[in-house]
Amino acid sequence: MKTALSALGRRTAPPPISWLMKTALARPKLISLAAGFTDNATLPVESSRQLLNNILRAPKTGQPALQYGTTAGEEKLRQLTALHLQKLDGGHDRAHSPERVIITGGSQQLLYMTLEALCDEGDFVLVEDPTYFVFLGILQSHGFRARGVRLERDGLDLAHLEKVLTQLKKSGDIRRVKALYLVTYFQNPTGATTTLAKKRAALALLKKFERAAGHPIYLLEDAAYRELRFDHGADVPTALTLPGARDRVIYAGTYSKPFATGVRVGFGILPEPLFTAVLRIKGNHDFGTANLLQHLLARALESGTYDQQVAKARCNYARKARVMKVALANHFPANVEIWEAGGGLYFWARLPKGISAGVNSKIFQAALNHDVLYVPGELCYADDSSRRKPSNEMRISFGNASEANIREGIRRLGAVLRKYV
Amino acid sequence: MKTALSALGRRTAPPPISWLMKTALARPKLISLAAGFTDNATLPVESSRQLLNNILRAPKTGQPALQYGTTAGEEKLRQLTALHLQKLDGGHDRAHSPERVIITGGSQQLLYMTLEALCDEGDFVLVEDPTYFVFLGILQSHGFRARGVRLERDGLDLAHLEKVLTQLKKSGDIRRVKALYLVTYFQNPTGATTTLAKKRAALALLKKFERAAGHPIYLLEDAAYRELRFDHGADVPTALTLPGARDRVIYAGTYSKPFATGVRVGFGILPEPLFTAVLRIKGNHDFGTANLLQHLLARALESGTYDQQVAKARCNYARKARVMKVALANHFPANVEIWEAGGGLYFWARLPKGISAGVNSKIFQAALNHDVLYVPGELCYADDSSRRKPSNEMRISFGNASEANIREGIRRLGAVLRKYV
Repeated sequence: MKTALSALGRRTAPPPISWLMKTALARPKLISLAAGFTDNATLPVESSRQLLNNILRAPKTGQPALQYGTTAGEEKLRQLTALHLQKLDGGHDRAHSPERVIITGGSQQLLYMTLEALCDEGDFVLVEDPTYFVFLGILQSHGFRARGVRLERDGLDLAHLEKVLTQLKKSGDIRRVKALYLVTYFQNPTGATTTLAKKRAALALLKKFERAAGHPIYLLEDAAYRELRFDHGADVPTALTLPGARDRVIYAGTYSKPFATGVRVGFGILPEPLFTAVLRIKGNHDFGTANLLQHLLARALESGTYDQQVAKARCNYARKARVMKVALANHFPANVEIWEAGGGLYFWARLPKGISAGVNSKIFQAALNHDVLYVPGELCYADDSSRRKPSNEMRISFGNASEANIREGIRRLGAVLRKYV
Repeated sequence: MKTALSALGRRTAPPPISWLMKTALARPKLISLAAGFTDNATLPVESSRQLLNNILRAPKTGQPALQYGTTAGEEKLRQLTALHLQKLDGGHDRAHSPERVIITGGSQQLLYMTLEALCDEGDFVLVEDPTYFVFLGILQSHGFRARGVRLERDGLDLAHLEKVLTQLKKSGDIRRVKALYLVTYFQNPTGATTTLAKKRAALALLKKFERAAGHPIYLLEDAAYRELRFDHGADVPTALTLPGARDRVIYAGTYSKPFATGVRVGFGILPEPLFTAVLRIKGNHDFGTANLLQHLLARALESGTYDQQVAKARCNYARKARVMKVALANHFPANVEIWEAGGGLYFWARLPKGISAGVNSKIFQAALNHDVLYVPGELCYADDSSRRKPSNEMRISFGNASEANIREGIRRLGAVLRKYV
C-alpha cells in the first residue's frame, strides 16, 4: 500500500540543525559552536518573574493575559512594536503603522506564512548565498525554487543580483519570481550586515524587473539579529524607510532573540494585499499567538525592562565575540578567512578553496572526534543548479557556549584545521 | 499589474468568526453568545502566578524555560502528556507513548500541519455535518475538498458514512480520500459526543475502503473539549484505545481550553510516517512551541494544579450550562429543538425546517438589532455540493458570557424567535 502523505509531507526534509543537535546530545563532552541558541546566563529570569507577577497579581490584568486574543495580536503590543521600529529607524514612520503589524510565533512563523501567501509550487525566491537554512527548508518542502545571489561583507553583490534577474527574464522565469529574501543584520550564517544603499539599490532593481514579471516582486527583510549589535557602529535603517517601501517591503522581526528565546514572539510588517492574506492564513494556523507571552513582552517594552535586557545581552555577546576573536587569532591557520561579526551570534570562516569542511568532510569528522561541532557552511546554500555549493566554509557560534568553551572549542577546531589546511 | 499572491494566498477566506468578533466589538452593549472564548473569572490567574514564580525563582529552572527547546516539545511535557492520556483512557497504553507526542501551538496548529502532511490540492477529507469551522477554513484555503457525513447526538450516522464512502468508491474519488475528521467530545458546534462503539465502527469502515483507496485513510480525532465534561457521565475512551489505532488514529488534544486559552499549548499523537512528516513541518513552522508555556504546563500537571483547575472549570461550566438550559426553556419557542451539552461550551438549537437563522436571515439581523449574537449554524457546514447546507440552526455558547448575560441574551434571542418562528 502506498503512503497517504501529501507531496509536501513526502518532500519535507529533516532540518540539518536537528541532526546536529542530536549529535551534540549524544556526546556529552562535545562543545557545540553550532546551535543558534542564545546565552543562558543572560536570560531575563528575574525580570520576567517580576513582570509576570505584575501581570498576574490582579484578575484585571491577569485574565486578559490568560484568555484568547485576536489573530493579528494584542493591540498594545502591535502599537508598541510600531513605535519601537519607528524609534530604531530614527523616527521614520513611512511604513511603520500598527495596523500593518502582525504578531507571530517567532519570526519563523511569519516567514512561513509569508511564503505560503506568495508562492505556488515552482515559484522562485531569490536568496543570499549563503542564507538562513530553515528558510531554505520552507522553500524545499513546498517545492518553491531558490536562486542564490552572491553575498559580500556589506550585503548583496548587486551586479550579481542584476545578472540573476536578467537571466530569469531571458528564460521567462521572471514571471515566477516573487521575492528577494535578505537577512540584513549580522546575517545568519555570515554575520554580514547590508548597507542602506544596497537595500535601496536592491529594491530599485526588483522594481525594474516587475514589468517583465507582471506582478510585484517583494523585498523580504529578515531583521532577526538587528538588536544584538555590539560593535558600537550606528544601526542601519530598514528598507521600510525607503520610498516605495509601503507597497513592496515585508519586514520580519523578533523579540525572541534579543529578549528570551523561550518567549517565542516575533512580528511582521506587511504591505497589502499580503497583510490581509497572511492574517487569514494565521487564522488557520492558530488564530493568534499565545496571549500570555504577548502581555509579557508588552510589559517588558513599556517598563524599560526590554531595553535593559537588550543592553545586557549586547555587553555579554560583545565579550563572548571578543573571546572568540582572540581564540581564532591564536589557533586558526592564517590562511583561513574570518568574517568578524559586529553583532548577532556567528562568525564565518572560509578555508582556502578546494578544502572541504562539509558534512562528509575529513575536517567535520575530525572535529567531531575532537568533540567540537560547527555548522558546515554548505548547509546554508540553496539548491540552485546554476552554481556549485561551496563547501569550504563554517558557521561558528559564540551564542550559547561559555567563554571557557569558546576558547577550548576554537583551540580544538584550530588543531584540526592546522592538520588539514 | 496582477497580484503576486499564491493560489493559497488568494483563496484563503476571512474566518467567519473574525467578522462576528468585529461585530461584537462595534456594539458595546451586545451580548455575544457567539465566541468560543472560555470563562474569564475561572482563569487560573493566581495559580499560574505561583507556578511561574516557582519556575523563575532560580536560574536552574528559569533558564531552560526561557531558552529554545526541541521541535517535538519539552521531554517532560511529552511524558506527562502520554501519562495524562493513558490515565484518561483507563490505563490504556496501546498508542499512548511519549515518542509519538508532539507539542504544538494549540491543537489548531496540529490540525493545520496534519492536513499539510496528508493532503494535496483536490484531496478529500470527510467531516461531520456540521463541524468546527476553522478546520473548514484550512481545507478551503488549500483547496482540499470536504464531504459531509450526517451527525447524530451520539456521533456520526454510520450508515451515511458507508454511503458516502461507497459513492466515493464508485466515482473513483476514494483514491483521494485521506482522513475522516471527528470532533468527538462535546462537539463544536453541536455539543454531541461520539460513543466508543461509533469510533470503532468508523475506524473499521475506513479500513474496509483502504484497498480501494490504495493508501491508509486516517481517523483524525479532535478531543479539544474532552476535559470540559460536567454531566457526571463517564469519560469515553479515545479511538487510540482501539485495535489498529497505532497505525491509523491521529489524536489532537489541547491544554488551552481546560487550563487557559492564553497559554496556547496543544498536542498530537500521531502514527508513522505522519509523526515524522509533521515534526519536520513543525521544524519549518516554528521549530518548537514557546518553552515558557510548556514549562508552565508541565509544572501545572505535575503539581496537581492542572487537575484542580479542570475541576473548577467543570463546576463553573456546569452552572452556566444550567443557567442557559433554564433560560432556553423559559424563552425559546417549544418547536425549537435544543441539543443540550454535557460538556464543552455550546448548545445547539434547530429551528423548524424552512426558517433561516443564517447570516443573511431576518432572525440574525433582528438578533443583532436586539444586541445579541450567535453563530449561524450554516457556517459550520463544509462546502459540499452533494447536499444543501441547512440554515435553520444556531450555535449558542455559554463559555464567556456571565450568568446574567446568558439569561438576558437568551431572553432577547427568544423574543426574536417568538416573532419569526
